[in-house]
Amino acid sequence: MVCFGFAVGEHMAEKIVLLGGNGYIGAAFQKFFKKQDIVFSSLSRKDVEYTHGDVLRDFLKTHKPSFLVNCAGYSGKPNVDACELHKAECLAANAVLPGVIRRVCEGLGLPWAHISSGCIYTGDHGCGMGFAENDAPNFSFRHNNCSFYSGTKALGEEVLDGASGCFVWRLRIPFNHEENPRNYLMKVMGYDCLLDARNSLSHLDEFVSACWQCWEKRVPFGVYNMTNPESITTREVVALVEKSAIGVSLKARGKTFRFFESEEDFMKKAAKTPRSNCVLDTRKLQSVGICMTPVRDAIERSLSQWGKCKI
Amino acid sequence: MVCFGFAVGEHMAEKIVLLGGNGYIGAAFQKFFKKQDIVFSSLSRKDVEYTHGDVLRDFLKTHKPSFLVNCAGYSGKPNVDACELHKAECLAANAVLPGVIRRVCEGLGLPWAHISSGCIYTGDHGCGMGFAENDAPNFSFRHNNCSFYSGTKALGEEVLDGASGCFVWRLRIPFNHEENPRNYLMKVMGYDCLLDARNSLSHLDEFVSACWQCWEKRVPFGVYNMTNPESITTREVVALVEKSAIGVSLKARGKTFRFFESEEDFMKKAAKTPRSNCVLDTRKLQSVGICMTPVRDAIERSLSQWGKCKI
Repeated sequence: MVCFGFAVGEHMAEKIVLLGGNGYIGAAFQKFFKKQDIVFSSLSRKDVEYTHGDVLRDFLKTHKPSFLVNCAGYSGKPNVDACELHKAECLAANAVLPGVIRRVCEGLGLPWAHISSGCIYTGDHGCGMGFAENDAPNFSFRHNNCSFYSGTKALGEEVLDGASGCFVWRLRIPFNHEENPRNYLMKVMGYDCLLDARNSLSHLDEFVSACWQCWEKRVPFGVYNMTNPESITTREVVALVEKSAIGVSLKARGKTFRFFESEEDFMKKAAKTPRSNCVLDTRKLQSVGICMTPVRDAIERSLSQWGKCKI
Repeated sequence: MVCFGFAVGEHMAEKIVLLGGNGYIGAAFQKFFKKQDIVFSSLSRKDVEYTHGDVLRDFLKTHKPSFLVNCAGYSGKPNVDACELHKAECLAANAVLPGVIRRVCEGLGLPWAHISSGCIYTGDHGCGMGFAENDAPNFSFRHNNCSFYSGTKALGEEVLDGASGCFVWRLRIPFNHEENPRNYLMKVMGYDCLLDARNSLSHLDEFVSACWQCWEKRVPFGVYNMTNPESITTREVVALVEKSAIGVSLKARGKTFRFFESEEDFMKKAAKTPRSNCVLDTRKLQSVGICMTPVRDAIERSLSQWGKCKI
């Protein structure tokens, strides 16, 4: 149920509107806001059809929030392969909706943030440091090498190019210590066979906290790569899992980790559409004084906090 | 105003729903249906918000049409350059809406047609015959060489790939004998400077008639290039204009036709985004027994029928 009136809370100066609050990322924002006593209103499309500019504008004009966070998006279930079958929905959520919100927020002078994804890149940029925010996507429709999902996310960023008062926060392969089919560590522990690749990852709770800091510290608007510093390969992640308590427990139950021979082998046996594997440059976020834990430390901490795992 | 109940007419077996009936193409369909006494209902979004699948489904379930024609699209005013500024609207109308209609029509088993465009190609395919229906677009996001408009039209066709009970009718550079800023002959006569390029064109009224024949004759569903046979260069069009009565009248009033030196010169001086210039192969349409006039004859006829021209 939507809290239309914004409940009274500690930070009355802040009144946040959250779109897509019931998804994996949106739920993490809700949890964060509740924990921080930040007043927010999570809109469901059933109550407020925010994909229609007029409806969103009326709501925002009435409730006068100080900031809006758009976590709405279409990523496919159980994975991005599903986006190949639901192209219109995927385009509507990932490319059109950001433009609708932009027009409304620019019209009202309301600052806002869009959750984007690092999946618009492939590779490590050749230099090991990864892709910076101003590098053009290289895993996109325009490169004709991408999943439909990545194509729509890259279009979403194109639609936001030049937007004023707008953060574009790029998440990449979220994980934390909680059981959820979207949690990357759950996937690593649960999949029959893994693809070894080097990636940047985002600790979900650190991601949300870092996003909030961008707004709270009033750092300059624009695009930010919101991943934990340093990159990691799947085999390294598995090594960290294996030496953790949950890994030892899995091994005792007979779990072994197997890998596809190659990306070709993976594409042949397990995937319908190419996956992005990429490294993002995190220096811009650090340059504004916002820190996330190096990725290995964040994974070890998540594993050490791991609850009762029902894989 | 929408005729919700479908007025009684000559062809009671046919009840057509028309989307985008107020645009340049949609208006030509309306004119054709009226002339042919075909029962149709032109929906305006104000009355029936057909971009929402549920609303469209409810309308179609209630009114049980025999066929639907989607002429809705976003092409930018005064030209495609405007699409670079309205990306979300352009994506929504040209790529998302076809997918929404597809889902609804497939669910109801309702045959329908989408007006697409030949602007997803560039060149003549190297062979002079032009691009056939099954050639992959080469002026698209996936080729990273296109206007945003063409990119969205190509995505629209991708969204319709494999659709059942669906015609994709590709129009290209419409013209006829009537004054309208969208009429290519008006543009040729009105622009200060022209780009010489070879193109396929569609005589608007012949296009509509040929589309209707596809449905009436129950030719196989699928993609059809709906352009007049043979291609023509801008200089050839100008030569036809110059020798027509309207051309002679224009010359008497001091009109001269000037050309850009090259496509680079055109891009530098007059355009913000690249234009498609292309030749389409029209043999598929001919193979199902539907004929359009060779393009030179169609242009000459339009010019000879030209009304009072207020250029």
